[in-house]
Amino acid sequence: MSNQDQPKPVTFSTKDSAAVDETDQFCPKFDSKGLIPAIAIDAETKEPLMLAWMNEQSLKQTLQIGEAVYYSRSRQEIWHKGATSGHTQKILEIRTDCDQDALILYVDQQGAGACHTGRRSCFYRSVTPGDPSALAFWGKRTFDPAKVYSSE
Amino acid sequence: MSNQDQPKPVTFSTKDSAAVDETDQFCPKFDSKGLIPAIAIDAETKEPLMLAWMNEQSLKQTLQIGEAVYYSRSRQEIWHKGATSGHTQKILEIRTDCDQDALILYVDQQGAGACHTGRRSCFYRSVTPGDPSALAFWGKRTFDPAKVYSSE
Repeated sequence: MSNQDQPKPVTFSTKDSAAVDETDQFCPKFDSKGLIPAIAIDAETKEPLMLAWMNEQSLKQTLQIGEAVYYSRSRQEIWHKGATSGHTQKILEIRTDCDQDALILYVDQQGAGACHTGRRSCFYRSVTPGDPSALAFWGKRTFDPAKVYSSE
Repeated sequence: MSNQDQPKPVTFSTKDSAAVDETDQFCPKFDSKGLIPAIAIDAETKEPLMLAWMNEQSLKQTLQIGEAVYYSRSRQEIWHKGATSGHTQKILEIRTDCDQDALILYVDQQGAGACHTGRRSCFYRSVTPGDPSALAFWGKRTFDPAKVYSSE
């Protein structure tokens, strides 16, 4: 969390679906599990870094502290990305799509990378044309995850 | 569909989750509804165009024909993007992430845009810093959706 003792409350709008694609009201649509996908993209290089999920609470925290806060589906808890590793993601811009059920986060990735495998981006493998069963690696490790992550 | 009369069969691998982040085998992980999110990004400008969903069948079709084929959750059917509008998305590269439950599609977007609202990208609104309830529009219409879409 930031040093703000009392973060400003965040509220979202609710709109009927017919108007959601042209409204100027932010009314994020969470799925049946209360989640919305958020794709973090490096604001400078435009490299996609990761896709993770937010619930209402983590999205509000993201807006309050200016850093990406996700919801970990595996751990079933709020996940302030980088809280233990230092690899936080400073939010420069958030965009939502036409039906407001997906988010793009343009971020300033802190530290050596976003991926728990030790790479800058989680998207380090490509499907091989002509042989869709095989993947080609293109991303190399930029840090040693064993040294960086204690509990993240 | 393309002119290929007999598309080459596509098969995916299955791996235990422990190895999935370092394997060179493509084993896409579909969620409890049989879907995986796919983010289409303009391969040249790196602009994110849309987030949609694929099921196993549509992902296989995508690999077979080299154009994005999604699964429409609202219509509950296979959705060959651009089949009616001409706004197809030619696949230049597909990447998967560490746990293989998300896809990035680098595409060559055909026609004026990807969004059903008549804009190039679905991500045409930004959350306003300091006032998260409001959105700022930045994307303008590049085509008239009423003229382009008949049934898409």
